[in-house]
Amino acid sequence: MALELYWGSGSPFAWRVMLTLEVKRLPYESRLLEFSKEDHKSAAYLKLNPRGKVPTLKDGDFVLYESLAIMAYLDRKHPDPPIFGRTPQETGLIWRAISETGSYLVTAGNKVIVPIFFGRGLEKTDEIQVAAATIREELRRTDTALTHCDWLVGSQISAADIALFPLIQLILRAASKETAKPFNLRFSPMEQNYSHLAAWAKRIETIPGYEKTYPPHWK
Amino acid sequence: MALELYWGSGSPFAWRVMLTLEVKRLPYESRLLEFSKEDHKSAAYLKLNPRGKVPTLKDGDFVLYESLAIMAYLDRKHPDPPIFGRTPQETGLIWRAISETGSYLVTAGNKVIVPIFFGRGLEKTDEIQVAAATIREELRRTDTALTHCDWLVGSQISAADIALFPLIQLILRAASKETAKPFNLRFSPMEQNYSHLAAWAKRIETIPGYEKTYPPHWK
Repeated sequence: MALELYWGSGSPFAWRVMLTLEVKRLPYESRLLEFSKEDHKSAAYLKLNPRGKVPTLKDGDFVLYESLAIMAYLDRKHPDPPIFGRTPQETGLIWRAISETGSYLVTAGNKVIVPIFFGRGLEKTDEIQVAAATIREELRRTDTALTHCDWLVGSQISAADIALFPLIQLILRAASKETAKPFNLRFSPMEQNYSHLAAWAKRIETIPGYEKTYPPHWK
Repeated sequence: MALELYWGSGSPFAWRVMLTLEVKRLPYESRLLEFSKEDHKSAAYLKLNPRGKVPTLKDGDFVLYESLAIMAYLDRKHPDPPIFGRTPQETGLIWRAISETGSYLVTAGNKVIVPIFFGRGLEKTDEIQVAAATIREELRRTDTALTHCDWLVGSQISAADIALFPLIQLILRAASKETAKPFNLRFSPMEQNYSHLAAWAKRIETIPGYEKTYPPHWK
């Protein structure tokens, strides 16, 4: 039975799983939920995922949500190519990078993205500027880490790269909006401000199947 | 060469790693940092962990921080007993539980714990009450999940249990403080409000070596 993926356009968490599926060359059936129609809050979907979020993976009778959990499941079931490392050290460093993304970039990212996309809290300029400074610091750290390496950990793409990439894309997209202009966020142009990170992003964009993962409503 | 663990008393993230080491019966050298002396911000420690947080593990020349990363590293290097599952399904469900702990309980927990312990933001009563309601909801979900099982996933203790337990202990400790009284948080008594969760906590407390992991300044 084919894998079924429930996702929404522009969700960085769903995007992670789609990239994982392409890296592992796993075919799947796409179940695109429309956030504007509240598909993710429908009774049928809440049976699969009581939190009403995306992504959710269905593999036969087995249902799983939370992006990192789905990535860990797929990696354990379909280990080739491994995305959680080939050695204990790589495994540790990959989860370190993922944890740092979660603790620092997701938290700060939300404080910038939510006001810009939804217009809520735009008056909290101090909070937005503090979060923007954290984002710039995290981008700088990652840019430095990529100075001499193609990938965050090891010699090939891993879950560390896959977990980070969609978040950066979402942050850059928020920063490009008219509403973001007054904040002078200075994340872009990536090629100039964070050149190693920009080159890394280009590498991810060459993954076979990448274009299938790109949020349709961003095109 | 022995493992070295840098930790601080009362850090739920350090506590996770200490529980992991006991579950796996791995001996280690304890490096207790005193937060009050800013040991975790010393130049020597920042060389090991530039974020200046605990825990950090040193295994010979290999240095790793972020609690979940250390747990994944130790599990890969010392797989018996496994704490990240015996099947892809278990692995997925364990990481789901860990992700949910991180996304919901850590975030809401901080909004209650930080004001109570550090006196910062005690005037944000609405925010504290919203966070407290989220905590009660998460405790309720977990309590229900434990109705017919001893452990969150599978038939033995896993990283899902280990990642959650110290956070709950910290939240209960904060709730027991005099400063918390006016908020009427209603997390305790656990035995009455969340009886399955209370029984689960008791099971964890019987792990051989548990008493070594208990925060010394809580005794």
